[in-house]
Amino acid sequence: MAQTVQPGKFVYFFSAGRTEGGAGDKKLLGGKGANLAEMTTLGIPVPPGFTISTEVCTYYYANGNKYPADLQAQIDKGIAELEAAIGKKFGDKANPLLVSVRSGAPVSMPGMMDTILNLGLNDETVAGLIASTGNARFAYDSYRRFIQMYGNVVLGLKHHDFEHILDGLKKSKGVTEDLALDAEDLKKLIAEYKVEVKAKIGRDFPQSPKEQLMGAIDAVFASWMNDRAITYRKLNNISEALGTAVNVQSMVFGNMGDDCGTGVAFTRNPANGERKFYGEFLMNAQGEDVVAGIRTPLSIEKLGEKMPEALKELHSYADKLEHHYKDMQDIEFTIERSKLYMLQTRSGKRTAFAAIRTAVEMVDEKLIDEKAALKRIDASTLPSLLAKIFDEKEKKEVLAKGLVVATGLPAGPGAASGKIALTAEKAVEWAEKGVKSILVRVETSPEDISGMHSSEGILTARGGMTSHAAVVARGMNKPCIVGCSALEVDYKTGTVEFNSGTAKAVKMKEGDHISIDGFTGQVLNASLNTIPSELEQVFVTKTLPMEKSLLAQQYARIMQWSDQYSRLKVRTNADTPEDAAVARSYGAMGIGLCRTEHMFFAEERIAAMREMILSSSLEEREKALAKLLPYQRADFKGIFSAMEGLAVTVRLLDPPLHEFLPHEEAQIEELAKAFGKTSQYVHKKMDDLKEFNPMLGHRGCRLGVTYPEITAMQTRAIIEAAAELLKEGKKVFPEIMVPLVGHFKELANQAKVIRETADAVMKEKGIKVEYALGTMIEVPRAAVTADEIAEHAEFFSFGTNDLTQMTSGFSRDDSEHYLPYYIEKGIYPQNPFQVFDWEGVGKLVEIAIEKGRKTNPKIKLGVCGEHGGDPASIGYCHRVGLDYVSCSPYRVPIARLAAAQAALA
Amino acid sequence: MAQTVQPGKFVYFFSAGRTEGGAGDKKLLGGKGANLAEMTTLGIPVPPGFTISTEVCTYYYANGNKYPADLQAQIDKGIAELEAAIGKKFGDKANPLLVSVRSGAPVSMPGMMDTILNLGLNDETVAGLIASTGNARFAYDSYRRFIQMYGNVVLGLKHHDFEHILDGLKKSKGVTEDLALDAEDLKKLIAEYKVEVKAKIGRDFPQSPKEQLMGAIDAVFASWMNDRAITYRKLNNISEALGTAVNVQSMVFGNMGDDCGTGVAFTRNPANGERKFYGEFLMNAQGEDVVAGIRTPLSIEKLGEKMPEALKELHSYADKLEHHYKDMQDIEFTIERSKLYMLQTRSGKRTAFAAIRTAVEMVDEKLIDEKAALKRIDASTLPSLLAKIFDEKEKKEVLAKGLVVATGLPAGPGAASGKIALTAEKAVEWAEKGVKSILVRVETSPEDISGMHSSEGILTARGGMTSHAAVVARGMNKPCIVGCSALEVDYKTGTVEFNSGTAKAVKMKEGDHISIDGFTGQVLNASLNTIPSELEQVFVTKTLPMEKSLLAQQYARIMQWSDQYSRLKVRTNADTPEDAAVARSYGAMGIGLCRTEHMFFAEERIAAMREMILSSSLEEREKALAKLLPYQRADFKGIFSAMEGLAVTVRLLDPPLHEFLPHEEAQIEELAKAFGKTSQYVHKKMDDLKEFNPMLGHRGCRLGVTYPEITAMQTRAIIEAAAELLKEGKKVFPEIMVPLVGHFKELANQAKVIRETADAVMKEKGIKVEYALGTMIEVPRAAVTADEIAEHAEFFSFGTNDLTQMTSGFSRDDSEHYLPYYIEKGIYPQNPFQVFDWEGVGKLVEIAIEKGRKTNPKIKLGVCGEHGGDPASIGYCHRVGLDYVSCSPYRVPIARLAAAQAALA
Repeated sequence: MAQTVQPGKFVYFFSAGRTEGGAGDKKLLGGKGANLAEMTTLGIPVPPGFTISTEVCTYYYANGNKYPADLQAQIDKGIAELEAAIGKKFGDKANPLLVSVRSGAPVSMPGMMDTILNLGLNDETVAGLIASTGNARFAYDSYRRFIQMYGNVVLGLKHHDFEHILDGLKKSKGVTEDLALDAEDLKKLIAEYKVEVKAKIGRDFPQSPKEQLMGAIDAVFASWMNDRAITYRKLNNISEALGTAVNVQSMVFGNMGDDCGTGVAFTRNPANGERKFYGEFLMNAQGEDVVAGIRTPLSIEKLGEKMPEALKELHSYADKLEHHYKDMQDIEFTIERSKLYMLQTRSGKRTAFAAIRTAVEMVDEKLIDEKAALKRIDASTLPSLLAKIFDEKEKKEVLAKGLVVATGLPAGPGAASGKIALTAEKAVEWAEKGVKSILVRVETSPEDISGMHSSEGILTARGGMTSHAAVVARGMNKPCIVGCSALEVDYKTGTVEFNSGTAKAVKMKEGDHISIDGFTGQVLNASLNTIPSELEQVFVTKTLPMEKSLLAQQYARIMQWSDQYSRLKVRTNADTPEDAAVARSYGAMGIGLCRTEHMFFAEERIAAMREMILSSSLEEREKALAKLLPYQRADFKGIFSAMEGLAVTVRLLDPPLHEFLPHEEAQIEELAKAFGKTSQYVHKKMDDLKEFNPMLGHRGCRLGVTYPEITAMQTRAIIEAAAELLKEGKKVFPEIMVPLVGHFKELANQAKVIRETADAVMKEKGIKVEYALGTMIEVPRAAVTADEIAEHAEFFSFGTNDLTQMTSGFSRDDSEHYLPYYIEKGIYPQNPFQVFDWEGVGKLVEIAIEKGRKTNPKIKLGVCGEHGGDPASIGYCHRVGLDYVSCSPYRVPIARLAAAQAALA
Repeated sequence: MAQTVQPGKFVYFFSAGRTEGGAGDKKLLGGKGANLAEMTTLGIPVPPGFTISTEVCTYYYANGNKYPADLQAQIDKGIAELEAAIGKKFGDKANPLLVSVRSGAPVSMPGMMDTILNLGLNDETVAGLIASTGNARFAYDSYRRFIQMYGNVVLGLKHHDFEHILDGLKKSKGVTEDLALDAEDLKKLIAEYKVEVKAKIGRDFPQSPKEQLMGAIDAVFASWMNDRAITYRKLNNISEALGTAVNVQSMVFGNMGDDCGTGVAFTRNPANGERKFYGEFLMNAQGEDVVAGIRTPLSIEKLGEKMPEALKELHSYADKLEHHYKDMQDIEFTIERSKLYMLQTRSGKRTAFAAIRTAVEMVDEKLIDEKAALKRIDASTLPSLLAKIFDEKEKKEVLAKGLVVATGLPAGPGAASGKIALTAEKAVEWAEKGVKSILVRVETSPEDISGMHSSEGILTARGGMTSHAAVVARGMNKPCIVGCSALEVDYKTGTVEFNSGTAKAVKMKEGDHISIDGFTGQVLNASLNTIPSELEQVFVTKTLPMEKSLLAQQYARIMQWSDQYSRLKVRTNADTPEDAAVARSYGAMGIGLCRTEHMFFAEERIAAMREMILSSSLEEREKALAKLLPYQRADFKGIFSAMEGLAVTVRLLDPPLHEFLPHEEAQIEELAKAFGKTSQYVHKKMDDLKEFNPMLGHRGCRLGVTYPEITAMQTRAIIEAAAELLKEGKKVFPEIMVPLVGHFKELANQAKVIRETADAVMKEKGIKVEYALGTMIEVPRAAVTADEIAEHAEFFSFGTNDLTQMTSGFSRDDSEHYLPYYIEKGIYPQNPFQVFDWEGVGKLVEIAIEKGRKTNPKIKLGVCGEHGGDPASIGYCHRVGLDYVSCSPYRVPIARLAAAQAALA
């Protein structure tokens, strides 16, 4: 679809007679405007109108909030053409043209001014509307709605300013419903509204339709820079330069009588993806009534009972649009006096479940090809496929009993159940005793992090999808519901109350059991069992056969296509055979990071580890290391076996040694006793190991350089494990990775120890083990000297967590003190520990890639930081030409899809 | 002087008849060899010989310790020519040729094999030596010395193995002096030595002179890679690739009788630079006797009494050499039977005092020009010019009383006096009470750092010039004596004993007063007053008029020439008017770093600072900041006044806020009380501020971004101070520097606050203040995005301390745990916090320079890390094109000289 940009042209018309632009013009006309033009061209009945292009927005902000000189004339011309097309006149006392004004950015943008309806009404034209419709109540209702909407959005009055007057009127009349007000009441209301407007803004409510229109256009452009819009753009990485368009469209009315109505529909089910027309409508209503929830909309099938022709026509347009756009459509329609009008069509938002199903089925329907199917799925939503779920039967029973006490925003997918914990401390305390909890707070802050970790799920009364609780919970893969406005928390009494206003209020107290459904936002006054996701049942626990799960079959096809189109390989970060097996079930192509330090914490091992640390001589240290060797060898055999046939990158000991020592006095004394040292000696040793900045301390290869015997022991364990498995006929590909290298001589030093030890073991065992030797690139110095380092390495694995810490000078553990401010103030678009900072840290990655390949063209390059599981960061990894990413087992599916999407981008 | 390299030629001959090479061939022939050839060519009597070139050494190590095929033949040819030149034959039973074998690298290299004398002696040739000299005792003594030296250096026997036998013989003879042994005794000793050699190495002492020679050559080349030599090269940044040469030279003897002698001399006084021939000699002795210290050498003037002709001749050679080399020469000579031979000449080592004087006077003598004079002075020695000294009269009295109890290595210049403290804790404890101490230890380790800081000076029994104590003390500018072998420390009893073996032992205890002279290495059993250096008296305290100080006059000329030839400007890091004034006295051209945090520690200020930190609202914080404003304004007025006419870069608040809070419970409670908060509140606040890695924490501009009111207050103080001074007619050039910027938006954010505040103040004051706004480049991310940052900055100041910490991942406070190993193992050549790591961190500096200049060609670039006072690092700063360096006040002279040297390099 062609681009329709014409220099100096700012207003684009659409009507059955003449339409400028189409679906390909989203950048110029915004999503809504482009689709209105497209539908018009397709011959679908759309009320005519025109779109003021995004170029005007850009001009407006680049020129001190001024419009191009020619704009007013073009708008006037647009209005004139619209009057001609529709046979009504703007401001006409007999049969006035009324318009809606809507914003419409190139990408969907909540937070901006949305809609002003019925523009063009004034004290005179309202009479015309009465005359032309013969419906005074409708006309006055339209006018008072217009004053309210315009007063609020354009003139800056509060919603409350009007509600107040309306409530007073209803009270004086002794009614509760708006519908109980008659035409005279509404006329009176209009008068009072106008008084209120004048009182607040110091001048009359504008009566000139043209003035009304320009005011509304101003308001749309101004809303592009309101706080909510700015925040949304930042969070979603949307460029400010895009700008918004303004759509001015002639009004049609769904509220003119019983032959009128309005509704929304999806061409397929947006929750599960089933190919079934899905939607709801209200008779004799305007669009806002459907959304407001005062009247209960009817299922779209019911429309057939009332207006079978309209439903048939709607079906045909829906089909036409889905085939035309080759995607599931979300449409809005209005029926005015039995005539159907389409007001909007756009790609339908869908759950991950629906995304998988629609994508696969559209391929089978030959509507789209595999590549398009892959692009359709938002990789970041895939965690919901793997999140825990409630037992379906159990949940049905609970729903049947009406135990849903509130509904909030589903901010983190998954099901969770536990005791209400009102403080982070309580959640931590219970977790230590094995008691499951749901952390319930008004809102969360950085001090609640440990409690969030310790709980099964999080529920907050305040906050939106991007609040602290929501963002942190998603990062932790925890079920989470935020913005649960029915919830009131009283920390003092330790109680909570759920009071949605519509049902009976429910009081509960800390310690009571609740369940939360992070897919739907439902809060349940019940203790429900959670079970693994359907995919986990099929692929990991193997308790559900593939043939019984349509989801699993379709997921498997998506993953197969992903691997087919991606260039980037996907490995996993796994430290145990169990994790390795899970990751492999989800398609991991090897281990990119196997951390060895976690292996030292089991009881008998930590003793030997501490003995090693407390050693006062090489001899003592070697004795302690000899005790650790068999454990490590066994660990590696388990992991290599789980990953048979695939590469396993083992990182040598990384954390500072003090992390392995106890902190409590009793434990210290016990430790001293166990190793025949005084507790003073232990304290002295601990003092010696204490560090001001452990992140930049004695860790990583610095341990191996100072204690080469540790490197030797670990190498021996790796090569012995590999040798034993090779003798059993298993294929293993160990890769030994040296952490925290900053200077090539560090790597050369460790490589010597590794090669000599490996050679010795191979000689002892009489078998050759193929292994690779490489390094992490996580210290900035390593990046800028990667040419020297690459001469000693067969692979680089970018440790983007630490690289981000050192390059930006952000201690990850401390950054909560300032990073939230940074994101709030727009200094960073996102948390650089979640989405890789390619504009900054990325520069070092690119330098390292270029320099590394210069001296070692065959070097293998990967990422093993947590960014390896983030779709946007994976896109970056693809673009800069890495060979693989490595992520946690449960993010492997995301990474596979994101890798394919990157390749197809 | 031309280079004499000829491919395939390895042996270079020198004799009065024919000499190959000269002083220009140091790279090929080593320093010693090149100068021997040069002297020979100049017609100065040098015993003939030949030099085996450094190329052989390089070949040897590149080819698995093998020599070039042709080498043996060339050596044989060299020996033949030498035999012809001297009229003696190698191995001749009647009149044998004897040679010395010495190493000689292109740069002076202690740690390698030094000298083997009398090579060519064996059971047969010793008889020939007797015959030709008529001196049996001399001949046998020469032989037994040769066996001892050769056995030790070439055959690997211990010194002790021989001493043992010698002691036994003396005991059996009832004598104590070697000289008491006669020819027969020595003959017997030789037999016993040979038995010992055979017992230890399993074969006879080599009798073939050629075999002896090849063994000695092997030993020289092998010593190039011994541990001491490797360590020395690392410490002095000498390339391993240089290799050493071997000098084989015919022997002359200073120990053949009373018409013989040997000595060393300097053409000028190496201690103070006075133009006066200076040296000492021994009659009837070999070179090693002068060094060994058993006999007391005589002053060189005395030679005139014994051999006036020889002294006259020596004078003439010395003059000739100094004029030829245009530098002060350190020469060695031997007189054999009244004939003078020159054995070595080289540039003489000198103190900083001597370096200044010789350089200036040689310019006045028109021997060298100003540029050469500047190159002559080792900038790193200049701190000794500024170190404290003893009152000369007082010290003379003490010396006269014989109170020197020991002499060690002068490892850190300066005079210090105080009570003996045997532990770091004691030194700290005393310092807190205002008691001065000298820390006396067997050796120091990282745990002693705080004690070293607290003491006036350091004295250790062990360690060399590069030991922990020596290196740390020089870094701290503390007087230090190491390797004081006469010192024994008994920590248990708290006593020390000085027992040099020659004088009476002196026992002292902890708390007794001693003084140390770090210029000479003398330890004095006395409490001496220390006074400021001569230069400080002239330039800072102004208690000594310039015309009374030759040193000050000459120093001033050196500094003037330095500024004339340097491109790099030298600023200072100063936080007080006092420091600023000192730095200005030493020629600072502005302040490159004025840290504002130190200003907050005075009693009334810390209270307001803490109030600010404990604030729970913006309002409270602003109230506290308002209290700090007048202090800051007064500080800045003081500093700007002291630097009137010069630029002053003020860094905004940098350290994390917790650094300003107290740590002891009582203080915390007091603090809480003072601000009407509970101590729980204070504890909570402190917990909230606690950080895992404060280095990467909430500090620098992150404080300003989260609390813009701090930035505003500091800006107000700066601009108000400047405005008030401008009104007084003073010229001030404030530069406001934002620390820890990593992202250009941080700088943009702070720049907005600064510009708005500055504009407001200027409006209030009704005066325009010219100020610059810039940033530190100390976060790696800033370096790689310097193009973006430069758009918001008028200057960059590289904070190389923090840049090194983050780029290399080294916490400076913790790096003592591993950096010493790194230097020991050659991973880093030096401590990167002392000498800038241009191979690594430098890459980022270069990227930042290139990118910064790309978007802002006029940007001013400087360095304000401690490297700004290190000569090697200053050289780097010059090479990469920085505009200025900034260093501590007492390093300004070093930096000025180093800047000139860099420009002249």
